[in-house]
Amino acid sequence: MYTIGIDYGTNSVRALVVDCTNGDEIGGSVYAYPSGRQGIVLDKRDPNLARQNPADYLTGLEASVSAALTEASANAQFSADKVIGIGVDTTGSTPIPVDKKNSPLAMSDAWKDNPAAYAWLWKDHTAIDEAAKITAVAREHRPHYLAKLGGVYSSEWLWSKIWHCLNVAPEVFAAAWSWVECADWIPSILAGVQDPLQVKRGVCAAGHKGLYCDEWEGLPDKEFLAMLDPRLADLRDRLYARAYDASEIAGLLCAEWAGKLGLRTGIPLAIGAFDAHLGAVGSGVREGTIVKIIGTSTCDCTVAPKSRDVADIPGICGIVDGSILPGHYGIEAGQSAVGDIFKWFVEIVCKGDDATHQALTAEAAELKPGQSGLLALDWNNGNRTILVDQQLTGLLLGQTLHTTQAEIYRALIEATAFGARAIIERLEEYGVASDKIICCGGIAEKNSLLMQIYADVTGCTMLVSGSAQSCALGSAVAAAVAAGSAGGGFETFAEAQGAMTSLKSIAYTPDAHSRRTYNRLYELYMQVHDAFGGVSGSADLCGVMKKLIAIREAG
Amino acid sequence: MYTIGIDYGTNSVRALVVDCTNGDEIGGSVYAYPSGRQGIVLDKRDPNLARQNPADYLTGLEASVSAALTEASANAQFSADKVIGIGVDTTGSTPIPVDKKNSPLAMSDAWKDNPAAYAWLWKDHTAIDEAAKITAVAREHRPHYLAKLGGVYSSEWLWSKIWHCLNVAPEVFAAAWSWVECADWIPSILAGVQDPLQVKRGVCAAGHKGLYCDEWEGLPDKEFLAMLDPRLADLRDRLYARAYDASEIAGLLCAEWAGKLGLRTGIPLAIGAFDAHLGAVGSGVREGTIVKIIGTSTCDCTVAPKSRDVADIPGICGIVDGSILPGHYGIEAGQSAVGDIFKWFVEIVCKGDDATHQALTAEAAELKPGQSGLLALDWNNGNRTILVDQQLTGLLLGQTLHTTQAEIYRALIEATAFGARAIIERLEEYGVASDKIICCGGIAEKNSLLMQIYADVTGCTMLVSGSAQSCALGSAVAAAVAAGSAGGGFETFAEAQGAMTSLKSIAYTPDAHSRRTYNRLYELYMQVHDAFGGVSGSADLCGVMKKLIAIREAG
Repeated sequence: MYTIGIDYGTNSVRALVVDCTNGDEIGGSVYAYPSGRQGIVLDKRDPNLARQNPADYLTGLEASVSAALTEASANAQFSADKVIGIGVDTTGSTPIPVDKKNSPLAMSDAWKDNPAAYAWLWKDHTAIDEAAKITAVAREHRPHYLAKLGGVYSSEWLWSKIWHCLNVAPEVFAAAWSWVECADWIPSILAGVQDPLQVKRGVCAAGHKGLYCDEWEGLPDKEFLAMLDPRLADLRDRLYARAYDASEIAGLLCAEWAGKLGLRTGIPLAIGAFDAHLGAVGSGVREGTIVKIIGTSTCDCTVAPKSRDVADIPGICGIVDGSILPGHYGIEAGQSAVGDIFKWFVEIVCKGDDATHQALTAEAAELKPGQSGLLALDWNNGNRTILVDQQLTGLLLGQTLHTTQAEIYRALIEATAFGARAIIERLEEYGVASDKIICCGGIAEKNSLLMQIYADVTGCTMLVSGSAQSCALGSAVAAAVAAGSAGGGFETFAEAQGAMTSLKSIAYTPDAHSRRTYNRLYELYMQVHDAFGGVSGSADLCGVMKKLIAIREAG
Repeated sequence: MYTIGIDYGTNSVRALVVDCTNGDEIGGSVYAYPSGRQGIVLDKRDPNLARQNPADYLTGLEASVSAALTEASANAQFSADKVIGIGVDTTGSTPIPVDKKNSPLAMSDAWKDNPAAYAWLWKDHTAIDEAAKITAVAREHRPHYLAKLGGVYSSEWLWSKIWHCLNVAPEVFAAAWSWVECADWIPSILAGVQDPLQVKRGVCAAGHKGLYCDEWEGLPDKEFLAMLDPRLADLRDRLYARAYDASEIAGLLCAEWAGKLGLRTGIPLAIGAFDAHLGAVGSGVREGTIVKIIGTSTCDCTVAPKSRDVADIPGICGIVDGSILPGHYGIEAGQSAVGDIFKWFVEIVCKGDDATHQALTAEAAELKPGQSGLLALDWNNGNRTILVDQQLTGLLLGQTLHTTQAEIYRALIEATAFGARAIIERLEEYGVASDKIICCGGIAEKNSLLMQIYADVTGCTMLVSGSAQSCALGSAVAAAVAAGSAGGGFETFAEAQGAMTSLKSIAYTPDAHSRRTYNRLYELYMQVHDAFGGVSGSADLCGVMKKLIAIREAG
């Protein structure tokens, strides 16, 4: 039996046909969104604007799945009627304004030229002011809303975007009967749902971005929303009352889409979720294991049993019941910059290229921990976890008149490793202990120096996800669970992951000697981290970085 | 009338013939010391060892003065009998072990192959252990000895070197009847002095390096020296009881050297002093004006009236009665690295060259103060003034993912400017106010961006010394004062400086707008400076840098 995982990325959508018995990826295809620039609708006047054309999602859905099935068909065992389920992951928060029939406004002639009617891509930052106001109002009136989100509501998230639409394009807001997250909308289309109130919403998007929590009976209450704008309070009734984890399904494949894709009508559709979360599933996330997607920044996911009191861990930006695996808290953290810091140093400071990366890595590998005398903070793009402060900046200290490029390069790798350890230790402090980290992404596959440093700094065994397409694979795993054993799939995620996910053979284990030195360096890192990060009880130098930004902005 | 200034540098000696009426430099010549490598006798087994052959000093004395006089003779007005005095400056502390006849041991057949019998060049660092022990003993038993020297006795200074000689080459120590600083020895040779006890010692070397002070009756007392080694206490009687400022002369030119040089017998010889101090004189140092020699590091000199209570300013490494101008306290401070920091960044971090320096300077000049959001500490080579701590290291903060080379380059220039301001403010706090800085050195002449930043940061007018040979010129000024008005020279340094020294026409004055921004940045600089520098009452992060060094050294 087979499932299909569909991964909606920032620039393209990927479909993957996976063998449920062994995780073999027997067919795959990528479709690049045709609209805008690399699939993103931009506005020259506003660099914060980033939208997408929902029509691209549908064209891409048909094109990528069809092509993946065609490739799979080269396999003698395979036939399309052996596909037992479909899973979907997307970027997020990427909300789409829809009409009463669950059709995106952008796909109607009336609104096709208005970017506010498009999908509001996760990295759209037009709603900075609204985010700040939501944070302020919540801080005063609903502090518990922010507790699970790290204390700050982001401009990237649902309510900021909807409110910004209301403020700058009230006609679009008025025309939108409802708003649906892309992660929920794709499965609803496959299920043929034609009423937004009937769309089965996933708890991943709802809980991590929409302020949804069963503790306060779903979405934020009307009184709170009315403090923002009474029209947002009115909208609440047209969104959803409940969101679901993967113990439910999103629906069954409708005849229309079964026909388009050449699949059986009525196969189950998994509840949609965000790419990083299903990527964690596809990499083998479980209790005691963190999945770390290392790219320009990182997204760190793990799960914790609900029996423990881990509901609110300070500085952890998202803890949502069932958002990764049903029956567990899904925990999401992240470092604001990792690959981006190395890229900055190599390309801008050293004016180098890929060959420079390689040369510096080789030279840095010859150094012992502590040998350079350097210590850096990994805050060039702020600190997401555990300080949740975008106004923090980078720091390097210990340089002499002999400090080399390679020494700085290694210090920057170490800084990101210390940042990773700070996340691990914060989780552990609140009862969520881990001893393994499974990494995804090119850096994890290519840079063994970084992986060994991470092992030595964190004390965790560093592993590499077996699939290069762990998000799409995770969606295929969710689809296999949606199918259930009766449908040819699995009853539990543990069983499905056991059969369908894998690790590469390499494992980086901590070296005892390096670990001792890094323990000493980490102590110093945290001393500087706490001082400049403004952690209460420590020396408060945090004002220094913020004041420098204020001086810069004052011109 | 004319005087001759002779400047003994690290690699060569320069003689300059100067017109006393207008400061015109009518003849000059440089002689490179032939011994060792670029004039420095090294030891492959010990990178700390740096010695010089005193014979080079004498060969160079005759060669450079003769050649300078030959050049001067091209001037129709000039004749050698119009030379009315000679002044000498040298590096220091550069002590020479001599026999009973004031002849260097190194110039005798018995000792010519033993580097311990040579001149111990200022930058010889073999006596690190002895310096640490002297500091420890003085801290416990004679804290006032250290108060004027910034709290730490250096391995570069007289007693460390003599004691190290005693420890590693006791036969040389035993053979040395006395030790004479190079700055005192050259004038004594010109005066034909053949007894070390008759050498007129200058207060500049004695006070800044020899722990000499009139307050405690000259050199350190025998009880103290005996705590180091009883043989050092014995040596005290064979050194000197009194040191002199420039209100005295060192002697009169003896017939032998008058003959060698073609000058009149009996012309006065100025008291010898260190190059930086006479460089300050040659640049026009006076009350309210700091002379800053900017090179790889800086040496900052100023003078203060003796009436004020400026005898002990914390963190200022040298305050000696009469060491620069008679009747004033001579004050010496310095930054451990300035040009060296830019050189490090350009050559090692950016892998660039002189063209890179120029390109970065041009790009950095386009930036406004505060625009980069960066802040740096200028401690890549430790901090000499005002923290007196060689175990401090560099720091850069505020970097983002977009921070450029030019932004860092400018931040490093600004850091050195903040370091300069810290010295100025410390002096002012203790009653030694300045509003002008006269700079010497290539950076001052070539880098107008740096000069303007220094003006804006310090609030002082930045001026450039008129002579490129301010040390030799300062010695010529001292010679003119030694001659006195009766001898065709001047009664006072102020008169002599007025006639013989000059400034370049350019002046950098503070820009009010930039100054306001830099005042805010300086406040942040001092916050970080005090925290990492361990200034009492502020957050103590100073341990961080020291612990990094300890970890590095532990391997």
